[in-house]
Amino acid sequence: MRIGLLQLNPKVGDLPGNAARVEAAYARAATLGAELCLTPELALTGYPPRDMLLYAGFARAAWAQAQSLAERLHQKYPHGPALLLGCPEANATGRGKALFNAALWCEGGRIVRSFRKALLPTYDVFDEARYFEPGDASAGSGVVEYRGVTFGVTICEDLWNDKDYWPHRLYPVDPVEAAVAAGACALLNLSASPFSLRKQTLRQDMLATIAKKHGLPLAYCNQVGGNDELVFDGRSAIMGADGALRARAEGFAEDVLVAELFGPAAAPVKPEDLSAPAETWRALVLGTRDYLAKCGFKKALLGLSGGIDSAVVAAVAAEALGPQNVLGVLMPSPWSSAGSIDDSLELARNLGIATRTIPIEPLMQGFDTALAESFAALAPEKGPDTTEENVQSRIRGNLLMALSNKTGALLLTTGNKSELAVGYCTIYGDMSGGFALISDLPKTQVYALARHINTLKAPAIPPAIIDKAPSAELKPDQKDQDSLPPYEILDAILALHVEKERTAAEIVAAGYDADTVTRVCGLVKGAEFKRRQAAPGIKIAWRSFGSGWRMPLAAAALP
Amino acid sequence: MRIGLLQLNPKVGDLPGNAARVEAAYARAATLGAELCLTPELALTGYPPRDMLLYAGFARAAWAQAQSLAERLHQKYPHGPALLLGCPEANATGRGKALFNAALWCEGGRIVRSFRKALLPTYDVFDEARYFEPGDASAGSGVVEYRGVTFGVTICEDLWNDKDYWPHRLYPVDPVEAAVAAGACALLNLSASPFSLRKQTLRQDMLATIAKKHGLPLAYCNQVGGNDELVFDGRSAIMGADGALRARAEGFAEDVLVAELFGPAAAPVKPEDLSAPAETWRALVLGTRDYLAKCGFKKALLGLSGGIDSAVVAAVAAEALGPQNVLGVLMPSPWSSAGSIDDSLELARNLGIATRTIPIEPLMQGFDTALAESFAALAPEKGPDTTEENVQSRIRGNLLMALSNKTGALLLTTGNKSELAVGYCTIYGDMSGGFALISDLPKTQVYALARHINTLKAPAIPPAIIDKAPSAELKPDQKDQDSLPPYEILDAILALHVEKERTAAEIVAAGYDADTVTRVCGLVKGAEFKRRQAAPGIKIAWRSFGSGWRMPLAAAALP
Repeated sequence: MRIGLLQLNPKVGDLPGNAARVEAAYARAATLGAELCLTPELALTGYPPRDMLLYAGFARAAWAQAQSLAERLHQKYPHGPALLLGCPEANATGRGKALFNAALWCEGGRIVRSFRKALLPTYDVFDEARYFEPGDASAGSGVVEYRGVTFGVTICEDLWNDKDYWPHRLYPVDPVEAAVAAGACALLNLSASPFSLRKQTLRQDMLATIAKKHGLPLAYCNQVGGNDELVFDGRSAIMGADGALRARAEGFAEDVLVAELFGPAAAPVKPEDLSAPAETWRALVLGTRDYLAKCGFKKALLGLSGGIDSAVVAAVAAEALGPQNVLGVLMPSPWSSAGSIDDSLELARNLGIATRTIPIEPLMQGFDTALAESFAALAPEKGPDTTEENVQSRIRGNLLMALSNKTGALLLTTGNKSELAVGYCTIYGDMSGGFALISDLPKTQVYALARHINTLKAPAIPPAIIDKAPSAELKPDQKDQDSLPPYEILDAILALHVEKERTAAEIVAAGYDADTVTRVCGLVKGAEFKRRQAAPGIKIAWRSFGSGWRMPLAAAALP
Repeated sequence: MRIGLLQLNPKVGDLPGNAARVEAAYARAATLGAELCLTPELALTGYPPRDMLLYAGFARAAWAQAQSLAERLHQKYPHGPALLLGCPEANATGRGKALFNAALWCEGGRIVRSFRKALLPTYDVFDEARYFEPGDASAGSGVVEYRGVTFGVTICEDLWNDKDYWPHRLYPVDPVEAAVAAGACALLNLSASPFSLRKQTLRQDMLATIAKKHGLPLAYCNQVGGNDELVFDGRSAIMGADGALRARAEGFAEDVLVAELFGPAAAPVKPEDLSAPAETWRALVLGTRDYLAKCGFKKALLGLSGGIDSAVVAAVAAEALGPQNVLGVLMPSPWSSAGSIDDSLELARNLGIATRTIPIEPLMQGFDTALAESFAALAPEKGPDTTEENVQSRIRGNLLMALSNKTGALLLTTGNKSELAVGYCTIYGDMSGGFALISDLPKTQVYALARHINTLKAPAIPPAIIDKAPSAELKPDQKDQDSLPPYEILDAILALHVEKERTAAEIVAAGYDADTVTRVCGLVKGAEFKRRQAAPGIKIAWRSFGSGWRMPLAAAALP
C-alpha cells in the first residue's frame, strides 16, 4: 500500500487556491504510484483559520469546495487514489459548536464519509474548543477499510494522548487505542503541528513509540509554511510497524512524499541538523517569506542600528525575500557611535541590501522645541529622562513608517524576546512595524543565530556587531547592562518565568538572586501593555508572547 | 433564609486585596442579617484571571488565601453565615486541565466542600476550557443542605443551558436540572457575567424563566467593575419561585444585597434606564475609572481634535477621573479649521479640564525635509499621498506620548469602532495610547452618546461638535464621507459583518449595495494588522474587537 503525503503550504482562507494546491500535489502523488493520499489537517482552509470558522458562510464555502474538488479529481483521475482531505464539517446534531474538525474520505467523485477529530487542543495557541464539537472516540468510529487494509484515521491531537507515553494526559480517551481495538492495521494522521525548538525530536520519538507499541505502520502528514506567528515545519513521515522511520518529507518546504506502508524498509533516512540555531534559521526564513507573500508584500525595510538584532533581521530578510527587496535605513543621532554607522554599512554590503541614511538630530531639536513649554508647565521638577529617549525612538518609527507607506515595503521590527519581556523597547518607536520576526528569540539565542548565519555565508554579519556590548544608543555611553542584568542571567530567569510558568518565589528557590528575580518579574508584568500592542512575530519557543500568551493588564503581579 | 450577595469589584490577581474585599462585604452582610453569603465567580482571583491561572504557584496561593479567609471569618464571626467563595481548585485527579472553577463552601473556619463549574464557556472572550476541567454535572453533585434548606449551587454558565429557553444549546447537560432532580429547593449562582448592550434584559428574563420553570427561588451574585476590556455590571438579583424579581443590587457599583429568599416579596424593584446610551455611559465611566485605577494611573490626557470622538472621550474621562485629572492637548496643523480649535477650547471649558496647545507645522516641515531625498530616490513617481497624512498623525502621537511619559498620565486614544473596523486611523498615530475607551462604539452610537451626555450635564459637548461633518483634517477640506459610505450605511454593514458574522455575499443578499459591501468588507480585512496592535478598549457590543476577535492576518478574504 503506497501512501501519498501531500505536505502542502496553504494560505489561510484561500479555498480555491488551497483546492488547487491539493489537486496539483494529488496529481503528482498519483504519478508516483500513490494508492491513498492524505492532506494535512484542515488543508482546504489552511490552519489555523481561527475566527473565520465562526462565519457559517465560510464553512459552507469550504464544504462546497471539497465536494467540487472530489468531483474534479474523479473526472481527471477516474482510477486515482482515494483522498483524505482536511476540511471543517457542519455539525448537524443541533447541539454544541457549529463544526467538526474533519477528514473527508473522497472517492469516486464524492465525499464518502468523514472522520471527526476527537481531541481538541485548547491550550497555548490552540483554541479548538472555541469552534469545534469533539468527534466520537469510541471504538469503530475511526476506521475504514480500503483495498483490503483497515485504516485507523486520526487528526493531529488525536495521536497525542497515549497513556504510556505521557505522564499527564489531557483527555480521558485515546482515539488510537479505539481504532486499534476496532481492527485498524495501519494508522493515518492528518496534522497541523507547528514548529518549536526541540519539538521535532519529541514528535519523531512519539510517532515511533506509538507505531511500535501497537505494531502498526503510521503515516503522518503535516502542514508546512508560515501562517502568521506559526511556522509549520512539515517533515511528514511514514513509520514502520517496528517504529523505524521509513521515509520523511522535507523540513520547511512543500513536498509530496509517496512511500510503501508495509514490508521491509527502504534505505535509512538521512538525519537533519536539529541544532537550535539551524532550526531557528530555517523557521525564520520560511516564516518571514510566507508572512510577507501571504500578506501581499514583496519588499521589506528595517532600521539598521549597528546592533546584533537588526543585523540578524536583515540577514533573515535578505535570505527570505532576496537582498534586492530589502532596504536598510540608518537614522543616526548625536548619540550614535561612528562604529554603529560603519558596521551597518558593512553589514548591508555583505548582505547586498541597499541603504538610506537619515540623520534625526534636526527632528530631535524640533520636538525639544515643541515640547519645552509644556514640559516646563506640567512637570517643572523633571529634567531629561527616558521621555527624550522615547521621542528619538518614535521619530525613527515615524520615518520608517513613512518610507513603508510611500514605497509599499513592509517595516520589519527588530526587537528580541528578552527586551520585549522586560519592556526594554519603545512602543510606537522601535516596536513599530508589521512583523517582529525575532521577537521570540532571547538575546542569547540572537547571538547564537548570528554566529550560525556566519557559518552559512561569510562575510555576513561583521564581527564588530557580534562583539560589541549591546546598547540602545539613546543617550551618551548607554549600555544595556547598565540597567539590565547580564543577558545570560536575564534569559535564564525569563525562561523560567515566561516559558515554564514559574513564579518569582519559585525562581528564587531555584537559586537565583532574589532582588534580580523580583526586578525582572516586575519588569515583565510592567511591560504587558507594550506586548499587547506589539507586532506579530514567529513562534520559536515552547511558549511565546503572541496568541498563546493571554495575560491581564489591569491586574496585580503574580505572587 | 436571608441571602447576602457580595457584589464585589475585585482586582485581578490581587489575592490579599480581594480577600479583604470579601471580608468587608461579608461583615456588612452579617450585620444586615444574612444567613448565607455568596461571592461572584472566582472572586478571590477576580475574573478573568486569564493566563495567571497557568501558574501553579498562583493557584496554590489563591487556595491558601481561601483557607486563611475561612479561618479568619470564623474567628471574627463564630456564628456568622456560611460563605460560598469563588476560587480555583486544583484538579487532583491526575488527568486533564490543572484546575476546577470552583465555589468553596466555607463554614466553621474551614473549606467544607467545593462545587465545580460544569459548563465552561469557550467562545467570544471566554477561554475556560483552556484552564479548567469541567465539574461533574450529574444529579447530586451540586446540592448541599444548610439550615434545613437544600441548595443547588451553580457557577455562571451552569445556569445558561436550559433546554426550554435556548433554541440551540451548547452543552449536553443542564446542571440546574440535575440540582433540581437531586432535591434542590433553592438555586444559588456565582457569576462573572460581563456587560454588553441589551444583555441585562436577556439575563433578567432568563433568570425569571428558570426560577418560574422550576418553581424555586434563585439567588444570583454577579461581579462588578472593569477588568481590562470587560465591564461587569453587577445587578445581582434574588428571584422568587414565581419568577418575580424580589431584589436587585446596584448596577455598575459595588453593593451588598441581603434579602429573604422565601415568602412574600417586598416592594417592587425600581426599573432602570436600560437605553443604549444610558447603559453605554455607565459602562464607559466605570470601565475607564477601573482600568486607570487598577493600572495605577490617576491622570489621563488625550488629543482634542474638535471632533465628536475626542469630545466624548474627554467627557467620559472627566466623569471617571475628575476633570482636574484630565488634560486635553490641541495640536493644530495648517489643515485644522479655526472651528476645531474654538470648539475644543469650549469643550474643555465646559468639562473643566485643562488644555495645552502645540502647533505641529514646524515638525511637519522637519519630516518633509528629512524624507524628501529618500522619497525622491525610492518613489520618484509619487506625489503627496496618505503617507504625509500619517506622518502628521504620528507627530501628534509622539507629542502625546512624550507628555504621557513626562507627566505619568495615561494617554487615551479616541478612535471609534467604525474607523477601527475599516482602518480609518493611523497606526502609531491617532491609535497611540494605553486605552481606547470608545473603540467598541460605532460612529452612530458615538453621536447618540454625545446627545445623552448633554442631557446629563449641560453645557458639556458644544453643539458645533455634534453638528459638523466628521473630518480627520489631515489634508485641506477633507471629510470622512469623501472616502467612506455614510455612517448609517457603514455601521449597518459592519454590524452584520463584524457582530453577526455575515459574509459579504450574505449582506448583499440582505439588500445592501454590492460595491459598497465588497469595499467595506475588504477594508475590514485590510485593517486587521492595525487592530492587532490596537490598545484595549471597553466591550459594549455583543461581539467586539479585542480578545474575543481572533482573525488571521496573512490570509485570504472571507468569501
